Amino acid sequence: MVVVMKREATEAEIERVAEKVREAGGEAFVSRGAVHTIIGLVGETAVFRGLELESLPGVDRIIQIGKPYKMVARALHPEPTFVRVGPAVVGRGMFTMIAGPCAVESEEQAMTAARAAKDAGASILRGGAFKPRTSPYSFQGLGRAGLEILAACREETGLPVVTEVLEPRDVELVATWADALQIGTRNMQNFALLKEVGATKKPVMLKRGLSATVEEWLMAAEYIAQRGNSGIILCERGIRTFEPSTRNTLDLGGMAVAQLESHLPVIVDPSHAMGHKDLVAPMARAAVAAGADGVMVDVHHDPGSALCDGPQALRPEELQALTKELHALATALGRQIG
Amino acid sequence: MVVVMKREATEAEIERVAEKVREAGGEAFVSRGAVHTIIGLVGETAVFRGLELESLPGVDRIIQIGKPYKMVARALHPEPTFVRVGPAVVGRGMFTMIAGPCAVESEEQAMTAARAAKDAGASILRGGAFKPRTSPYSFQGLGRAGLEILAACREETGLPVVTEVLEPRDVELVATWADALQIGTRNMQNFALLKEVGATKKPVMLKRGLSATVEEWLMAAEYIAQRGNSGIILCERGIRTFEPSTRNTLDLGGMAVAQLESHLPVIVDPSHAMGHKDLVAPMARAAVAAGADGVMVDVHHDPGSALCDGPQALRPEELQALTKELHALATALGRQIG
Amino acid sequence: MVVVMKREATEAEIERVAEKVREAGGEAFVSRGAVHTIIGLVGETAVFRGLELESLPGVDRIIQIGKPYKMVARALHPEPTFVRVGPAVVGRGMFTMIAGPCAVESEEQAMTAARAAKDAGASILRGGAFKPRTSPYSFQGLGRAGLEILAACREETGLPVVTEVLEPRDVELVATWADALQIGTRNMQNFALLKEVGATKKPVMLKRGLSATVEEWLMAAEYIAQRGNSGIILCERGIRTFEPSTRNTLDLGGMAVAQLESHLPVIVDPSHAMGHKDLVAPMARAAVAAGADGVMVDVHHDPGSALCDGPQALRPEELQALTKELHALATALGRQIG
Amino acid sequence: MVVVMKREATEAEIERVAEKVREAGGEAFVSRGAVHTIIGLVGETAVFRGLELESLPGVDRIIQIGKPYKMVARALHPEPTFVRVGPAVVGRGMFTMIAGPCAVESEEQAMTAARAAKDAGASILRGGAFKPRTSPYSFQGLGRAGLEILAACREETGLPVVTEVLEPRDVELVATWADALQIGTRNMQNFALLKEVGATKKPVMLKRGLSATVEEWLMAAEYIAQRGNSGIILCERGIRTFEPSTRNTLDLGGMAVAQLESHLPVIVDPSHAMGHKDLVAPMARAAVAAGADGVMVDVHHDPGSALCDGPQALRPEELQALTKELHALATALGRQIG
Repeated sequence: MVVVMKREATEAEIERVAEKVREAGGEAFVSRGAVHTIIGLVGETAVFRGLELESLPGVDRIIQIGKPYKMVARALHPEPTFVRVGPAVVGRGMFTMIAGPCAVESEEQAMTAARAAKDAGASILRGGAFKPRTSPYSFQGLGRAGLEILAACREETGLPVVTEVLEPRDVELVATWADALQIGTRNMQNFALLKEVGATKKPVMLKRGLSATVEEWLMAAEYIAQRGNSGIILCERGIRTFEPSTRNTLDLGGMAVAQLESHLPVIVDPSHAMGHKDLVAPMARAAVAAGADGVMVDVHHDPGSALCDGPQALRPEELQALTKELHALATALGRQIG
Repeated sequence: MVVVMKREATEAEIERVAEKVREAGGEAFVSRGAVHTIIGLVGETAVFRGLELESLPGVDRIIQIGKPYKMVARALHPEPTFVRVGPAVVGRGMFTMIAGPCAVESEEQAMTAARAAKDAGASILRGGAFKPRTSPYSFQGLGRAGLEILAACREETGLPVVTEVLEPRDVELVATWADALQIGTRNMQNFALLKEVGATKKPVMLKRGLSATVEEWLMAAEYIAQRGNSGIILCERGIRTFEPSTRNTLDLGGMAVAQLESHLPVIVDPSHAMGHKDLVAPMARAAVAAGADGVMVDVHHDPGSALCDGPQALRPEELQALTKELHALATALGRQIG
Repeated sequence: MVVVMKREATEAEIERVAEKVREAGGEAFVSRGAVHTIIGLVGETAVFRGLELESLPGVDRIIQIGKPYKMVARALHPEPTFVRVGPAVVGRGMFTMIAGPCAVESEEQAMTAARAAKDAGASILRGGAFKPRTSPYSFQGLGRAGLEILAACREETGLPVVTEVLEPRDVELVATWADALQIGTRNMQNFALLKEVGATKKPVMLKRGLSATVEEWLMAAEYIAQRGNSGIILCERGIRTFEPSTRNTLDLGGMAVAQLESHLPVIVDPSHAMGHKDLVAPMARAAVAAGADGVMVDVHHDPGSALCDGPQALRPEELQALTKELHALATALGRQIG
Repeated sequence: MVVVMKREATEAEIERVAEKVREAGGEAFVSRGAVHTIIGLVGETAVFRGLELESLPGVDRIIQIGKPYKMVARALHPEPTFVRVGPAVVGRGMFTMIAGPCAVESEEQAMTAARAAKDAGASILRGGAFKPRTSPYSFQGLGRAGLEILAACREETGLPVVTEVLEPRDVELVATWADALQIGTRNMQNFALLKEVGATKKPVMLKRGLSATVEEWLMAAEYIAQRGNSGIILCERGIRTFEPSTRNTLDLGGMAVAQLESHLPVIVDPSHAMGHKDLVAPMARAAVAAGADGVMVDVHHDPGSALCDGPQALRPEELQALTKELHALATALGRQIG
């Protein structure tokens, strides 16, 4: 970390910064430039951030050089983390296909989608029982009944289940039924929820926030890891930009940066990123080629009757063709199917 | 709402859309263009959104013409809403100053800030007991003890208190101590939390999400209103853009649009938008001149020792000067002090 | 196109809109909703845009349904365009590798890079003689001397040359020396320049502007096509977003949309999008898998001494390995090498 | 400037950086941290940027601490610049109103608008003869004939004229007729054009690019100043963000930063930022209150027939009311009318 002092900073102000750093166990090296004096800090970035040095008089700004996360940092934990979701595994060097309905609407609909996922060769079933919706007038999910349907789907297909949890007091319930807990985009910085899932033993799929930087995303993962749960799968699902022709902008560069910076697996959800099924297959292929550790897509037997995000859902036969193609591509690129 | 059909849409597909609209109590007018057939819907936008027409076969896209919110819409409720927070009032045609510490750090610090707010002429005291922080290694707030300190500040100064609540199960606790509940930027689409505060009788200050459109912000307010709580104050606090010289980009145009679209009061938080105290006064003045119904600023007796957002805090004497100036400006513009 | 009238619009205002449309050779269908009256227009979107209907009294807003471009639209010209650059070809279903130095710095440097491109198996040589630089204190390119060096490189390697032109009065000069003219990101809406290159017979590589929508990008191409030059290659090179970990955000979804909407070839420049060489290979692979018609990368024999964008340049041996890998991937995906 | 070395950087690589800095007349201070070695540079930022240090082996990244601009920097030239446009003046502590038609459409239309500007009390007339339009099918301006009409308007009203120039070879022509040259948003980084207007003696109004940072905007101004022309007026006109309810997002915070960083006057164009007349007045008031040195607005006698941007144009009587209000506000805030 580097502290840039204001032009008019006094010696006493410079010394106060250096002292605060030393008290926290760090070292401070002062370089006096023609215009600015800068202070280089040696020690732990996460600790220095807690000092709130930017508030001190005479400080112009703080420049972060090290990374603020520790437990999820690849620099500190070079070995890749492999996350087990039931019998499936997600991790670097592998490729894991996740598929299922956006929302669980009925036992029949979910079961059809689950069978389609199984038949296509997917390893994990996705499906939402609790749905976060922009409008209070939209379908909000079946709740607990949806969880029971998902469990029945697992029973039938053998696929482990990942499903979203929306609030801290539902974590225990959802963890009882699901194999992995999903934290949705809108909740990436719902810190109470992050702490709660961090206290469980269940793997967590953490979606990137719509306007979260990669660093903020990893800091959100740090909240979970810090509570003792390191079974975290990161999921890139598009960020918000000015471009209106796709629902969001899929940031595969950000995905690749997350892989460089963290030992956690990083997967991609092209369905929610694009919002339109015609773009799901090209972006899924791109994700695999860019090195994503997995891909998650929506499937529905009759997208025209879907209660949530129908336009982005693949039909069972389309899912089958895509999964086959992605598995071939991943294999050709030296990846093991997870 | 207008449904744009694909070029290749069949008559049966067109008819299916029209039928679904009619079943929901709306009317559908079909216009056949040279390239696209479009279907104009007459009825309630909120209802049509729930139909998920975009999933139907043959549909290219949906274009929304009416607004998806109802209870918070000025078009349907032209009278402005005046929200009472203890003895203070916030609403159109008024100007209400809110000030206080970003975070409650100790009784002494909070009390000093509360007295500064009172002396400066502010009408409402802000202060965070539960703090959402990007890093798990940063100060997370005093929690319940912070609430007690805020209550003591109210006791001493007579100022009503607005403070943030982070999760549904804390709503009851926070509502016991506070005069108004704040929903923070990162929780704007934490729907479980919105529903919970909607079920209380306390006024709610709803901050705009970092990457929320004005429409999404009003839909979040609709969640609260729908539960029976219409005491909602909207707060613009900057959006995330590519510009790095300020923490966020204050969107006064968006603030003005929210005022045109909704009967709810809309205030501005220039401290969090800018992240730097030198820019707080000009943006506060701009907010008043643009028509904001109030302004909320951070104050700290010793910003250099602040545990949260010190660089943006005004000192007591600066708060006093600014409040005086804003009151004069608001009065000159014909506003009543709230 | 749909015209949404204001709630308070009069019959005369509605009629004025309809009349203006009819005068321009279109048809207007009026649907009276409970709240808004909407007018559906049948005819040419490009013509309707020229009418500036949004200025008419009583008009609330215009919703575009058709596309404003004609000559570059795939809907109107379904056959893919194949662009010849010297002996190379770029077009749908093919894969063409373009490589070379970001800037021409000296004959030796450029020649080394050109040989590296040739040896690696690239089909087109890139290299900048005129460089647009954010700072007036940065290297601005060798100008005409750079063009002569590029011609010598073509002489030696047989590779055709694409190079940027910065202003209308240089178009003739650059067209004399180069095989294709590049319009850079910052000039995507430099309409005088677009018109000028549109008047030549040389192929044009049109980079997407940093904050241009796909539609604006295609409209810029329309400017060129309209002047009689349809040899246009679109190049996605990253858009500006809030994410700081990569220089820009590569928008492969936008690339795919451009391919759906236009018959023109669309290639990807991962070097400029990422700004860092470690991310070039994964993004190049992703581009091929997403269906890009080509990839363009920077190469430099000693990136440490580069006068422009050294951090993103591959070394010759890295280029060789990447090109081999991309050709294999493209072939596996059924593409022909261009 | 601070150079952050990679973890694995060798001593020789560190030394190579230090040497290159010393050769350029700077000083280099090396601090070895536990993880990263950082090198603090003392000297001129603009010179260091030219060294392209980020390309050197072993360098992880460069962190800029000083500013890359010199001639336009307030830190180096603390005295405010007052720019004379005919008899009008624009500069810090003043308030200058600029008004006129978006585009010159005919002598009658322009003259009516010019008289309206004059009657309202504006000091400078704006009007476009050369129009940059997204679509080649939109009205492109009257060109030279438009310049002659503007000159006639000046003759009649006494107001000096600012008008846009689109390409280098038109600069001489436009400079002959106009009192000030406008560089539009899309041309902010058209460096050939910047150099050309920098070589004239005419004042230049430089609009901020749609996705330009404040620093890039000031660097564009540096291009002009470097050629000997320091009569530069910066104009904030909205940036591109995800928010669709206004055409662009007016960045008054960025405007205020430009004022802190530069001695040049900074004005605001709320008409083009908002795209809708209802938002022009509130944003114009906000601009004045935030400290803008002037405001520029569109006026048209019959917005319904405007050939460009009619929805944002004020009618003459609206311009009169707004100008009166802004003059009163500026005077109350201690500003002198320019």
